[in-house]
Amino acid sequence: MDNEKGLLIVLSGPSGVGKGTVRKAIFDDPDTDFEYSISMTTRNMRPGEVDGRDYFFKKREEFEALIEADEFIEYAEYVGNYYGTPVQYVRDTMDAGKDVFLEIEVEGAKQVRKKFPEALFIFLAPPSLAHLEERLIGRGTESKDVIAYRISEARKEVEMMNLYDYVVVNDEIEQAKSQIQTIVEAEHLKRERIEARFRKMLLEAKK
Amino acid sequence: MDNEKGLLIVLSGPSGVGKGTVRKAIFDDPDTDFEYSISMTTRNMRPGEVDGRDYFFKKREEFEALIEADEFIEYAEYVGNYYGTPVQYVRDTMDAGKDVFLEIEVEGAKQVRKKFPEALFIFLAPPSLAHLEERLIGRGTESKDVIAYRISEARKEVEMMNLYDYVVVNDEIEQAKSQIQTIVEAEHLKRERIEARFRKMLLEAKK
Repeated sequence: MDNEKGLLIVLSGPSGVGKGTVRKAIFDDPDTDFEYSISMTTRNMRPGEVDGRDYFFKKREEFEALIEADEFIEYAEYVGNYYGTPVQYVRDTMDAGKDVFLEIEVEGAKQVRKKFPEALFIFLAPPSLAHLEERLIGRGTESKDVIAYRISEARKEVEMMNLYDYVVVNDEIEQAKSQIQTIVEAEHLKRERIEARFRKMLLEAKK
Repeated sequence: MDNEKGLLIVLSGPSGVGKGTVRKAIFDDPDTDFEYSISMTTRNMRPGEVDGRDYFFKKREEFEALIEADEFIEYAEYVGNYYGTPVQYVRDTMDAGKDVFLEIEVEGAKQVRKKFPEALFIFLAPPSLAHLEERLIGRGTESKDVIAYRISEARKEVEMMNLYDYVVVNDEIEQAKSQIQTIVEAEHLKRERIEARFRKMLLEAKK
């Protein structure tokens, strides 16, 4: 009916924050109306994994040829294996008017930001950050060293969230899931998106 | 716990679009967690109206003294009577960390935009705008004049929405209500708001 492009939604955050768990909760919810972009990797398939569902499994030479051909939105090497997000699926899905969801590492999110500055960047923050104030100031029972360590960790995380549009605290998975859905729903109501559609429609009507 | 300021939420749109009805649905919902800013007027109280609930009713001289003292976020004169939003209540409520909701005319929204550029501006659009494309292009049964009229009306409304952050189509009241609540919820998850809170907390922790 309308030719509005889908959104690119990027969920990222510090490692260990629970990105995968939140992503799973989102895609287990039948109300979720966006597509998950499957990553490509050169690591070996593990028992129970399915090619094209968990990952696209590729040989190292194939992966490197795709890097050469600029076929990744983002990629990185971890422990001797490549992981990346193929650009074609993302573009095709957005062009078909469907929202695409990426769940990636912070370094990858930086690369996506360069190629798709209009994407929606959501930072998943650990709950400790949210509780830090209470913990630190609340009772004064923690040692200076512990407080200093927590502050330095918190500072790193605040710097990391700098490039993101939204922050969701992963305190409770269902709440994090529903906050991400809320953000996406609100994004679809942004004036720029709706206005562009109406302007296009007015132009077409004048023909 | 935190000293985050409340949001200023401005709902506006063409006259007759149903702003008052949507506002009523929002404040009839026990889940709504924002404060309604009551307007001030010089018109006579109508049967059933209560001073301080429906409006603050003032004498013309009192109202003009407040205009002189720059005590309005926005005001206008309609059919010989003044209507305006007193600034004090809005500032006090936001400073107390609560969201304030204004439901005002398009001209008033322009004035608010100048004084509170950080406010959240939501345009309530008539459903006819949303259905225009189908109507216009769909079956080709409407006369040229009707189409031209509809296009000129739609153009005015697109120009009016230009200054707003979000657009909600008032097709179904419950849906419009829930979309407005969604927009406010997402706004509270914006990185700028959360980041500012964390930075403040880090500064305090270092003392």
